[in-house]
Order: sequence, then structure tokens, then C-alpha cells
Amino acid sequence: MIKVSVMYPKSLDGTFDINYYCKTHISLVGELLGDSLKHVTVDSGLAGGAPGEDPAFIAMAHMTFDSVESFEEAFGPNTETIMADLANFTNIQPQIQISEIKL
Amino acid sequence: MIKVSVMYPKSLDGTFDINYYCKTHISLVGELLGDSLKHVTVDSGLAGGAPGEDPAFIAMAHMTFDSVESFEEAFGPNTETIMADLANFTNIQPQIQISEIKL
Repeated sequence: MIKVSVMYPKSLDGTFDINYYCKTHISLVGELLGDSLKHVTVDSGLAGGAPGEDPAFIAMAHMTFDSVESFEEAFGPNTETIMADLANFTNIQPQIQISEIKL
Repeated sequence: MIKVSVMYPKSLDGTFDINYYCKTHISLVGELLGDSLKHVTVDSGLAGGAPGEDPAFIAMAHMTFDSVESFEEAFGPNTETIMADLANFTNIQPQIQISEIKL
């Protein structure tokens, strides 16, 4: 299993509508990717590790797929539609990472 | 529910023993934190979002707790023991983030 993490760095002028993200954007992604998307979680950043420190990411989504190929096949044809929705909830460019799930 | 993400940035001279991390370090953390730790996942970074791009993080652990207070009570007395084990698997300073689980 692999995990695709979409991480939105927190910045002074960064905006992020977490309600739209959870209710509308993630639903859109789920409909477009279908059964290839096995599981999705959404985190809203509260704090960093040191007292008073901001979180590095204002929001993170973690999506699991059977394989990198399965993710690419599902995401590829829908990239444009998914990315076009970003302007509806944020002005932040997300940082994307693909990981192997070890535990 | 909250999530504590421990993220190890990938760097040129950074080392990380993912086997020790999964088998020994996470077990140690689990024993020390006990029932407060609800769930843990470990990801090993494969790639970034752009073709040929490195992952931002060589490894990430995501741990869930009932609340920030529950995490702090469990982690506080064990911080020194847990941090002392880091030298056994990495020379990287992790980036820590506390998030609210929205989905």
C-alpha cells in the first residue's frame, strides 16, 4: 500500500477553507478516483512541536492506494479537474509526497 | 481525536534506518505511551509530486490520541527516553506537528 500526502504549508498570507476542503473537495476527489482510493484522512494543523510554535502545515490530506500505478492511473485523467478546484478553498500551493506504508 | 505527526526531512547527508524505526523505536514509543496511543502509522518517503522529485520527508510517523492533553500527559514523562533513542536510527531532527483530525 502507498500513501499520497497532500500538505499545505502554513504561511502568513495563506488562506485555507477547511470546511469546503472536507465537505466539497475531498468528496470531489473521492468521486473522481473511485475505488482506487482506499482511504482518506484530513488533518487541520493546530501547533508545532515547540511551545507556541505554529504547525508547519495548515492542512494535510493522506490518501491510500494499492500501488503507485493505481494512484497514477486514477489521478492522471482527473488532475486538471482536481487542481482547478484548489482556488475555491486556498491560495497555497500544496507539497505532495508519495510514501510506502511500512506500518 | 488529534494526530501527532513526526516528520523527518530528507537531506543529502541525512541518514535514517527505517527497519530500526519500525521494529524498535515505534515499539518503544508504544510501550512507553501505553493506551493513550490509539493508532500509529509509519510512511517511508518514495517521491515528491513532480517527476523525479525527492520526497520532502524520508519518513513520517502519524500517531493518534484522544486529545492534546492525553498526548502531553503520556509523552511528557517519556520525552527524554524517546528522544535519546533517535541517535540509534537517524541524524535528522524531526519536525513535529499536532493536528485536529477532521476526516
